[in-house]
Amino acid sequence: MDIHVLTRELHVENDSKIVMLVADGLGGLPMSPGGKTELESASRPNLNALAAIGVQGGSIPVAPGIAPGSGPGHLGLFGYDPVQYLIGRGALEATGIGFELKSGDAAARGNFCTLDAAGKISDRRAGRIPSEESAPLAVRMRQVTFPGIEVFVEPVKEHRFVVVFRGPGLVGHVKDTDPQKTGVPPLPAEAIDAASKKTAEVANTFIAQATKLLAGEKKANGLTLRGFAGRPDLPSYEEVYGLKAAAIAVYPMYKGLARLVGMEIVGQAQTLSEQMQVLEQNWSKYDFFFIHFKYTDSTGEDGNFDAKVKKIEELDAAIPRITALKPKVLIVTGDHSTPSYLRSHSWHPVPTLLVSDCCRPDGHTTFGENTCVRGGLGQFAAKYLMTLALANAGRMTKYGA
Amino acid sequence: MDIHVLTRELHVENDSKIVMLVADGLGGLPMSPGGKTELESASRPNLNALAAIGVQGGSIPVAPGIAPGSGPGHLGLFGYDPVQYLIGRGALEATGIGFELKSGDAAARGNFCTLDAAGKISDRRAGRIPSEESAPLAVRMRQVTFPGIEVFVEPVKEHRFVVVFRGPGLVGHVKDTDPQKTGVPPLPAEAIDAASKKTAEVANTFIAQATKLLAGEKKANGLTLRGFAGRPDLPSYEEVYGLKAAAIAVYPMYKGLARLVGMEIVGQAQTLSEQMQVLEQNWSKYDFFFIHFKYTDSTGEDGNFDAKVKKIEELDAAIPRITALKPKVLIVTGDHSTPSYLRSHSWHPVPTLLVSDCCRPDGHTTFGENTCVRGGLGQFAAKYLMTLALANAGRMTKYGA
Repeated sequence: MDIHVLTRELHVENDSKIVMLVADGLGGLPMSPGGKTELESASRPNLNALAAIGVQGGSIPVAPGIAPGSGPGHLGLFGYDPVQYLIGRGALEATGIGFELKSGDAAARGNFCTLDAAGKISDRRAGRIPSEESAPLAVRMRQVTFPGIEVFVEPVKEHRFVVVFRGPGLVGHVKDTDPQKTGVPPLPAEAIDAASKKTAEVANTFIAQATKLLAGEKKANGLTLRGFAGRPDLPSYEEVYGLKAAAIAVYPMYKGLARLVGMEIVGQAQTLSEQMQVLEQNWSKYDFFFIHFKYTDSTGEDGNFDAKVKKIEELDAAIPRITALKPKVLIVTGDHSTPSYLRSHSWHPVPTLLVSDCCRPDGHTTFGENTCVRGGLGQFAAKYLMTLALANAGRMTKYGA
Repeated sequence: MDIHVLTRELHVENDSKIVMLVADGLGGLPMSPGGKTELESASRPNLNALAAIGVQGGSIPVAPGIAPGSGPGHLGLFGYDPVQYLIGRGALEATGIGFELKSGDAAARGNFCTLDAAGKISDRRAGRIPSEESAPLAVRMRQVTFPGIEVFVEPVKEHRFVVVFRGPGLVGHVKDTDPQKTGVPPLPAEAIDAASKKTAEVANTFIAQATKLLAGEKKANGLTLRGFAGRPDLPSYEEVYGLKAAAIAVYPMYKGLARLVGMEIVGQAQTLSEQMQVLEQNWSKYDFFFIHFKYTDSTGEDGNFDAKVKKIEELDAAIPRITALKPKVLIVTGDHSTPSYLRSHSWHPVPTLLVSDCCRPDGHTTFGENTCVRGGLGQFAAKYLMTLALANAGRMTKYGA
């Protein structure tokens, strides 16, 4: 069910404030059976105090067993079914570096590659060229011009870059030009449907001109394009929830994801403390605040259990600055689990805590994976978290008479 | 998933009896964090005894965060997906006053309004005319006649009435005639699609004749029609479950909802004790009994925590009369929560208890919101309750070989 069918109809305005604090990769695992998770190991007096007056549960990002990337993980939290709403790879890559995609753009991920004298690929990643060398080459490709189309080329990292074509009649259904093997030339860009013919032509023109600009380079004298995609057509927070929403994030990817659902990016915080300051300064201006904390994920991906514990403690210490603002609804959750034990995103339900004056507390006095299993929210699909937030904020009328 | 696809195929006959006791708005909230809910505060020895041999859980009426009205709330309990099956406003209003809609009827909610000398609306609710004054005017409008169409006008309350048109070729897709503001005349009824043209014409003819009949009235000299709708096309209990079902309700709305799914309305009970008597008298005649108890909702809507507690105790005291009949399956639940704290329907999962000889008891010895969180039924969609009832009654064969 597309829950937005209901939220569009039922949402109402009031003065309430909703805060969604997302600790990326929050969920964890014990390092050995019988042990505690990172969250359970952390000293977390403020989260525990919230647990005592709130309700908790396990949020399932996509479906049981599915470990999501940042895109689907956040779409779920934002209430957009992450299977129904796909963000194409090119669009996600552009979003991830903070490129502001517009409707009608066609974005692709680019790889520098090495071509031999016969024009065949000898290295699909251009010898894993370092970013310092590849970035100027990406910038050089901005010299490509052709009438009626704007071309944006942005460096990413090592052999990767992003290209975005902007102009009338562009659609993202174009096949990859990466043949996925060496000893053959890059493939021409080929339209998947009639509507994408122009995009394929534009891509081929770009490839031809760019290859000339790269001629003579030792490592990166060629390129391939993959994951063609347009800006995903996501209805905005304003449309589906009636919420004026702000995103307070440090990293471009999360600002980009928030922008795709119509949130405004506020502040230029670089630390959690600065994020709290931005929250305080913008408190009166928005209904909904998405605060993104990255480091619970990155420490988990490093497999550094103790460092993840410390980051959770840092997050816990910031809670009083949020509660001092007296939000009507405060949610603490993550976009997915990133257990240090696995050093990667995982499918495990994400510990989620919701606090409001009408949330029906479940009697737990600590916040952790094991209490979430027995929590009042049960194990629920992440996409329903926004509906619960709106309900607890008094921002929805009843369905049917 | 439409669970009826399976129940239609799998249901079998036997002599078992199923009782669904619906305490309207049963679920509640503590008045302050750490407190007890209405149900948890009630002396409920009989419900607790059932809990000890039964299994409990939280029923989610529509979806997490969605507070349902009586229509969707009961459709869910009856096993009809409340998003898939919509009851239009006009049809629900007619149902609510006990009007027996037939397939092909077009029903609308009517408002008396005050028109000025120029025919513009000066008061959209006719000065909130009292029911004693408005009811005779609704009856007066029954004088409207035109060939080939039967017209029914029923008083509701204050400025509200219901009109039902019966005849060939009527469809409910007609726009509201209420302009939602004063200083302008009522809108003409306008068809939303070609199939509804005749209905719009009939409505306009009715409005013209009725307005003449109301001429000279000080407050209610005009009318508007809203929420045009046909009888919803719901498959019957007999079709989808193979059950001969009886409804024992006091209020017209719940009799009406039960009638829409093919239940027979039995008895004319006015009290819970009389409802028990009707149950006893009809025990041999039906397979399934829906018993509706209104007062847990109305006390909740009044914000009267103590009164709701008392009503739950009254309900508890009636349980032995049900168990004495030895139903194969007894379910105690509600169509939604109505916490006294919120004075309104809410989205919170509804405490639900199922008892049968094969229900796999979950070890709880009391029945309440907090035990439901940890109950054997988990947090489940209300629409699956009927499937569980059939299964526990031995009324379904296995799916697939």
